[in-house]
Formats: sequence, C-alpha cells, structure tokens
Amino acid sequence: MPNENPLRIVVVGGAAAGMAAAVRCRRLDERAMITVIEKGPYASHANSGVPNVLDSVIEGDTALIPQTPAGLKARFNLELRINTELISISKKERTILLKSVDSEENVYHLSYDKLVLAIGADPALPEIEGIKGTRNFFTLRKQKDLQAIKAYISKHESRRATVIGAGFIGLRAAESLLRLGLQVTLIEASDQIHPAFDKDIAHYLQTELSSNKVQLYLGTTVQKLVMIDADDDCSHLQLDDGSVVATDLVVAAIGLNPRVSIARAAGLAAKRGVTVNTFMQTSDPDIYAIGDMVETENRLAHSPGILALGGPGSRQGRLAANHIYGQASAYAGNVGTFISKVFNLTVAMTGMSVKALRHIGYNPQWVTVHTPDHEGYYPASSLLTLRIIFEPYTGRLLGAQAVGKYGVDKRIDVLSTALQAGMSVFDLEQLELSYAPQYGTARDPVNVAGCAAGNILRQEVRTLHPNELVGHTSEWQIIDVRTAENYTQSNIPSSRNIPLDTLRENLDNIDKEHPVLVYSRVGYHGYIAHRILKQLGYEVANLDGGWKLWVPKFVACKATLCQNP
Amino acid sequence: MPNENPLRIVVVGGAAAGMAAAVRCRRLDERAMITVIEKGPYASHANSGVPNVLDSVIEGDTALIPQTPAGLKARFNLELRINTELISISKKERTILLKSVDSEENVYHLSYDKLVLAIGADPALPEIEGIKGTRNFFTLRKQKDLQAIKAYISKHESRRATVIGAGFIGLRAAESLLRLGLQVTLIEASDQIHPAFDKDIAHYLQTELSSNKVQLYLGTTVQKLVMIDADDDCSHLQLDDGSVVATDLVVAAIGLNPRVSIARAAGLAAKRGVTVNTFMQTSDPDIYAIGDMVETENRLAHSPGILALGGPGSRQGRLAANHIYGQASAYAGNVGTFISKVFNLTVAMTGMSVKALRHIGYNPQWVTVHTPDHEGYYPASSLLTLRIIFEPYTGRLLGAQAVGKYGVDKRIDVLSTALQAGMSVFDLEQLELSYAPQYGTARDPVNVAGCAAGNILRQEVRTLHPNELVGHTSEWQIIDVRTAENYTQSNIPSSRNIPLDTLRENLDNIDKEHPVLVYSRVGYHGYIAHRILKQLGYEVANLDGGWKLWVPKFVACKATLCQNP
Repeated sequence: MPNENPLRIVVVGGAAAGMAAAVRCRRLDERAMITVIEKGPYASHANSGVPNVLDSVIEGDTALIPQTPAGLKARFNLELRINTELISISKKERTILLKSVDSEENVYHLSYDKLVLAIGADPALPEIEGIKGTRNFFTLRKQKDLQAIKAYISKHESRRATVIGAGFIGLRAAESLLRLGLQVTLIEASDQIHPAFDKDIAHYLQTELSSNKVQLYLGTTVQKLVMIDADDDCSHLQLDDGSVVATDLVVAAIGLNPRVSIARAAGLAAKRGVTVNTFMQTSDPDIYAIGDMVETENRLAHSPGILALGGPGSRQGRLAANHIYGQASAYAGNVGTFISKVFNLTVAMTGMSVKALRHIGYNPQWVTVHTPDHEGYYPASSLLTLRIIFEPYTGRLLGAQAVGKYGVDKRIDVLSTALQAGMSVFDLEQLELSYAPQYGTARDPVNVAGCAAGNILRQEVRTLHPNELVGHTSEWQIIDVRTAENYTQSNIPSSRNIPLDTLRENLDNIDKEHPVLVYSRVGYHGYIAHRILKQLGYEVANLDGGWKLWVPKFVACKATLCQNP
Repeated sequence: MPNENPLRIVVVGGAAAGMAAAVRCRRLDERAMITVIEKGPYASHANSGVPNVLDSVIEGDTALIPQTPAGLKARFNLELRINTELISISKKERTILLKSVDSEENVYHLSYDKLVLAIGADPALPEIEGIKGTRNFFTLRKQKDLQAIKAYISKHESRRATVIGAGFIGLRAAESLLRLGLQVTLIEASDQIHPAFDKDIAHYLQTELSSNKVQLYLGTTVQKLVMIDADDDCSHLQLDDGSVVATDLVVAAIGLNPRVSIARAAGLAAKRGVTVNTFMQTSDPDIYAIGDMVETENRLAHSPGILALGGPGSRQGRLAANHIYGQASAYAGNVGTFISKVFNLTVAMTGMSVKALRHIGYNPQWVTVHTPDHEGYYPASSLLTLRIIFEPYTGRLLGAQAVGKYGVDKRIDVLSTALQAGMSVFDLEQLELSYAPQYGTARDPVNVAGCAAGNILRQEVRTLHPNELVGHTSEWQIIDVRTAENYTQSNIPSSRNIPLDTLRENLDNIDKEHPVLVYSRVGYHGYIAHRILKQLGYEVANLDGGWKLWVPKFVACKATLCQNP
C-alpha cells in the first residue's frame, strides 16, 4: 500500500488482541507507523496464564511475558509505550490523550489515522461492605495481582483463603491456593459452580472439589467483610444467611466488566461492551475495538454478547488489521467454547447449555452418555461424561458439555467444529475419527452420543431426564437393570432390580398397563432393556445418563455442600 | 416389525463389524432369530488391540474378549456358534454351508432370510522363498498369532526379531518386540516408513525409530528365508541387494487381503473386496457385507477402496441392520483417518496425502507448521508438526497430517471433522476451539495452519517446499533468518545468515534483482521476513516448514537408515 504518508496506526492495549492487530498491520504494511500503548509494565503478556502461576505450575511469572519493547521494535518495528494510560479520545481531531502512569505531569496527545482499542476488562467487584481499601482483599487478573497475593501470603503466613466466585478463574484460584498449602473456602452466589454449564454436569466438579477438601458455599453471597485482628490480618466474612467465615485473605473472581467508559465518553456506541460491526469497527469508522472490551455476535443467540477469551480476541485483532488495509473478512461470530481443569478433572463446553438455550427461547433436546475415553483394555482408560444438546426434528447441534479425566478437550473441539459447520446429530453418528486403542474407541464417544441422540429423534428410544423423574417416581414402574450387587449398594427409591441379562425371563413381573422407567449404570444397558420392552408393547422410557447422572444430584452433592459452621 | 415368522438373520464373523450388525438387529427386532457364526474361539474380540498385547501394555489378552457365548445369549438373545467356518453360500437356496473347525464330519446347512458377511481379511504374505511351513515365521492379526509369537519367543529365548512391513501394524509389532527385550530389524519395501503419509512427515518417525535402536531397511525386500540352525531356530534373510540379516524370528505385516473367495464363488460381485452399495448390500439384495472384506467409497477419490478400520466397520454393521429393517441410512463414505503411536511420538492423518492426491489427478497445495501443542509457558509443552493439504483457489481441505508428542489426536480429529463438513482453510483461520494454557494455544495449531494456508491462497506469501529447493539452490539468494548461533551449528548450503531482528538494517546486502528464499527454524519468522522483503519490492519465497522440515530430509535420515551389514 504505497501512499504519500505512512499510515499512523495506534493500538491501545498490549495483550493478546492488541498485539495481534499490531503485528498483522506490520505484516500488511512495512511503512506504517505503528504505536502500541500499554498501561502496564509489559506487553504481549498472557493473562490466561495468571491463575496457573499462583501455585507455580508455571515456573515464574516472567514466562508469561514473551516480548520486550526492544524486541518488538527490532522484529516488528513497533513503537511500544509501556506504563502509559489512555485518558480520552477525540474522534474529531483524531487524537488520543495519554498520560504516563509514573508522572501526573506527563500528559500528551497522539494523532492517529486508525485507532485500535484493546483495553480489555476490569475484574468485577462484589458488593461487599468493608472491602474498600482492605489489604487482604484481592482480584486476580494481571501479573501484578499475582505478585501481590503471593507476597501477602508469604509475609503474613496466611493459612486460610476464601475465593468468591466459582467460574473459571475462581476455580483455578481455589486450586492454586490449596496447592500453596492454604485451607480454601469457595463461595458462589448461584446454586451451582461453573454457571455456564448445566447444573447436573457441574455436580461432578462439586464432588471433585469436595474430595480435595475445598469448602463450598452455593447460593450464598458475602454481605460484609470485617477485619478482626489488624496484626494477623484475619477477617470475618458475614454471609447473607447470617453465618460467618473466618479467613486470612479473600480473592474475588466474579467476572469481568469491559472497559467502556473512555469509549463511551468519546461518543462511541456501547452497551455492556463497545459495539462493533463484523469487521470490528466501532460507530466511528476509523476506530476499531477488539478483545474483552467488545460485544460480538453469538451464533446461537444471534445477538451480541461479551466473550472474554484469548482465541477470539487474537482473531479479532487480525480482522481489524485486515479491514484497515482493505482486505476485509467478516468475523464469523462466537459459539462459546470453554475449557478448564479442576483438580484431576477437565471440564469443557461448546455452544450453549440447556438452561441458556431455554432462556432465549429454544426448546432443546439433549442426551448424556458416559463412555470410556479410550479402550477399556488399554491402561489409564476412564469414563468420560458427554452431553450433546440439539434442535428437535433437525438434530442440529446447539451445544455440548463434557467432564472427565482424559480426552475431554478433544471431544469438545470436535463438537465445536461440528457445531460451527452446522452439523446435526445424524452427522455425528457417522463421523470418522481417528482410532487406536490408546486414543479412543472404535465407536468414539462423539459417535456414541450422536447415535443416542439420533435414536431419540427417530423415536427408537424415549429418554427421561433426572429432573423429570424427581417428584414423579410414583408414576413409573422403575426397574434397575444393573447387577444385584450394584442395586443392593444403592438405588433409586421405589425401584426394583431386574438385571438386564435376566429381563426376558422376568417379563411376567412387569405390569404392561403401567409405564416403565428403566435405568442402568451409564444408560447403555437401560437402552437395550428399553428396546426389548418397547418391542414387546410396553410403554417405556430410559433414564438419561443412568445412575451415574442421577447419583451426584442426590447423593454426592449433599456431602459436598458445606453446612454452615 | 410383527410378522408371521421371525426373520432369520445370520451374521458370519464375530468381530467388531459383525457384532455391531447383530446387536443392532436385535435392538430393532426382538423376535428375530439371530445367529452369529465365528471361525475362532471367541466373539466380539478387539483385533485393534492385538499388537499392543504383545508387550503386555494391555494386561493379558483376555482383556480383548469382552463377551462369552452365554453372555451374548442372555443380553442380546444371539445364538453364537464359535469354532465354525463358512464353506459356501447358496444365494438361490438362501442357505450357507458350515463346518466345525474341530471335526471334518460336522458339516451342515443353515438357512437365512438375510445374511450379513463380516469375515474380514487375511494378513497378506510377502513373496519370500522358504517361508512356507517355517516355524519362526509369523503374521500378527488375531489373538492366536499373539499367543504363538509369545510362546515361541519364550520357548526359544529369541533375541533378534525382524518385522517385514513398516505400516501401522508393523511399527507396533517392532515396538512391542523391542520392549520384550529383542533386537529388532524393520524392513520396508517402499522408500519410507508409513507409506500412507507424505515422506517428509514419515522422516520424523524414522528418527524416532533410530533413537530407539530399531534397525531400518527401506526400499528393500526379502527374497529368501534360510533356516541356518534347526536347534536354535536362527534364520538368514537374503535381501534383494544381496545382503543378509540374521534373525531368530520374522513377523510379516505387509497389509491385508479381504476374504472374497467364498463371496466370489457364490456369484457376488467383488473386486479386491466385495462390492456393496451405500446400504452395504452386495449384488444379492438379501446378502450384506461389511468391515474389512468390502470396498467402500472414498470421499476424496470418489471411488471404492479398502479401509480396514474398526470404526467404519462397526458403523457399517449398524447401517446393514438399519437397511434390513427398512430404516435405510446411506453410508457417508470414508475419508481415511488413521492414528498410531511410534515410541514417544503420535502420528495421525486424515484425508489423503499430497502424493496420493497427485496420483489420482488433484493438484493440491499444502503448508507445514510447527507450533506448541499447548502454551510454551505451561509444563510439558512440545512442538507439534502439522500439515494441511487443500484445493487451490477454493481452499477446500483435502487432508492433514500431524506428528508430535502431545495433542496430535485432537488436531487430526478436528481436521477430519472439518474435512467431512466440507470446510476450507479460510474456515480454519477462524475456527473457535477450546483454549486454556494446559490444552492449547490462544491461536490453536489448527488456526495457525489455516492462517498459513489462507496467506498462500491470498498470495500474501509464496511458499517453496523443500523438494522444490533441492537441486535449485543456485537459483536463490538463500537467507537464514535464525540466530547466528543456530546458523553456525548447521544450515542450508549456500545460505547466508541475517537474523530476523537485524533484517531491516541489512537490506543493502540483499540483491533486489535476484530472487530471495528465506527460512527460519519453523517457518514463522521466515514468513515475517518474507512480508518485510515483499513489501519492499523483493521477489521472495519462504521455505515451507523451515529448517525443522528441511533437516530430517538431509541429516537425520541418513543416520537412521541402516547401512547394509
């Protein structure tokens, strides 16, 4: 793009999204004058790594900072101004006002031809009386938060930590603090951890937290923080039910608030985040916004929303640069694909949960399977719980959730790809995936889930979800088709035991005039029993996900949930 | 399906495909009389596990046999006849002739309404003089082969084994024998191991074999086996180049031959495998054939071929049953997705290789990236080599190959899904995949490969493949943009070193009248250098895959390849 004057591009924000825009601009235009403004002392830093550094899984936080200003100058000919804060934007003048964070007097204007805003989001603060200025209250977002928490724990020899918020960051923080040797209490306002997931899937994580000795309060908010002892920095947290938690420090991780105030003050359209078009342009065509501060289209909700993830942010940076140079490609929108590790489990999802789909007006169907992540005869195989959520009739995939020890990331990435391609559960039945005994099963968990969903849509099987059974057990003859040994250990109230392999001999004991609900350990034997009974004229349903989906709902959770002290 | 007489279904072959057909028939028809004929002593066995049991990664080969005849009777009401061999089929009479393998006299007819053939394939035998009846010569397909090899090694205290054929089974066999403590020699007729892969990708495996002390002969065939010493069962293998390998036992794994002779004798259409339509029907509408014995459509070649894999086989079984019961769904065809573990590396592919695509008339483009399987700052990250192959102009994905320590299965399954969905490399640029530092990178390897391919199709970068440089180095100014330290250690002949970060200061040293080839360690810095030079008016290309793709071709392989003794 040879023109008279080099294009002056200013990128504000030096994390993943901003740097992606800056380096893409350089690759498209060797002559451009590209300036990157960063409030903090580093650029090109990896915020995603922060919760992992807390317990030193990553050796030292400098590992998160790949680039120096001199390195960025040499490689990309970028001018990086660190410790520099954006004060305001003048659309009319095409200038921004900047201030050095070290000096009140160093305030100056910078002109731009194209401005790319990538200033991110602030940790949301819970509404708790007494946290303002309290030195044992922290959020966890940047390297400096990390350093502050670690220094505090070390200096005060803290023994007890409380994390507020049980989303991705809160769970990672809880695990990190526990690994540092602290007793950890986790408090979540909603009635489940990981609210993006369906509640029964989140239950598996609650069991995992419990077995790792994290104290968990659900459906609970903190009203007030009271410093009890100024010397050893002990606090009491007063909860909304009147109970009290004693703690040495508090880390809040209840979400993010996009930084929109400066954009809004400049007259740029914004809702919760800054409004952008599909090319990442704001309401001013010379100003782009990308990353955690913007609202982008959700492909299932067909409406804009916040999605604070590194992957989409860096793609948006690339697209903004493309558009600046007349090489537009449209942002494809988000489906919402998340993953996190919770102690020994991995949990991941793509698309929307059942409850979120219902909330916006869908009438989703879903099915839950538990199947080995790889062949049971090969070492270290373990059960993977996989739910797929789909549109009635068409079978179009709307979401998926998985939890397990191994192979969770693979299945969710396959399903995310399938969802983005517009595939249906019928496509999943035949999807050809790589197979060797170490890596999967000849019929992969994705195929198994697809077949189970296809069977529902073809009306080969009727599935009852655990929630539909609660309070309605008397309407069914409930038959447990597991072994007698399993049945004796624990079972669904009012169920009878007829092991699958003896079902055909025991038909006389099943009343044909009364609907039958069958269940097995994971749902597969229940399906076989269902097919036998249905063909013989019984009205029959199979319990989705079997005993393994039912049991955490009514057994494990009660044990996990912390009783008020 | 209530009708007067129960349908008589006979399934011949009790491995994965046959059992999938039998149990699906039962689920669709409780009344059917379903008989499964199996030549061996087991049913429902997992042939895929066989090479893994050899070195006891799987504890005991009984783990591969999940079902007993009594269990199959109780659960699925199947009549399983083991140790029973198919002799012939009479289409006209709708009968098959069976024989007990234990007794010459026990020969009888069995009538069917629908017949499902799933009799698999035999290991192909190499044309070697002297192997007939030789007791230290084996193939490796079934449990009994496994037992025979292990018993032989134990009885004769074998120290040296030779494996003929370096495909999936041959490589697993070589590794298993090595872990049992034997010295292993691997002999492959083609000029690379794993011939389904492109040769330069296979090179990484050759290095892995070499560092694990497997002796490798490529482009070599065995002409003759000579028993030297009848007491300790030592053989000499005479190779086609006149050299000799001394060995205590030989395992041949050169491929499979579909068992077509009985079908062909019965008048069913067959080529290399039995011919079936998309519902798995043979040329006789009451006879179905599935699994390793049939030819199914390859979706890229648009022609039938053999694909001996457990996943497709079990899907075909399900489809045959569906069609028998008037619930047809068409077989989607194969793309060819493979995975295997070679010592510490995993190698996988989907679609077709560059050479295979060219062979059938495509003009594919491709790009090779090396990128961390997960964030470099999180422990145990390692470089993943990923190649994607695509159609010119449209960018439609035609294949992918990957090799590395971790995360290979995930990326190939994502790419296989994308390929089956008809996605292009432009879709891969924006594909939203799960991201946390333990599992991937904010821009996943799949995104990186997609962007690299997109850049080629948008003509932002010109890529030169290593093969295109060999013999043409004098046509280029070759510039190595790695560090001086890396350059000094080893470099491409006639290259000069200008580290990327000093490129802009050294433009005076690059002749604008003469084409420039840049290369870096993995190709990414070469791409940045390419963009700088191209915008300044140079004619420039970047070496695909960088030094890391170039070097095994000319350095590691020579060391790996066994010189004749």
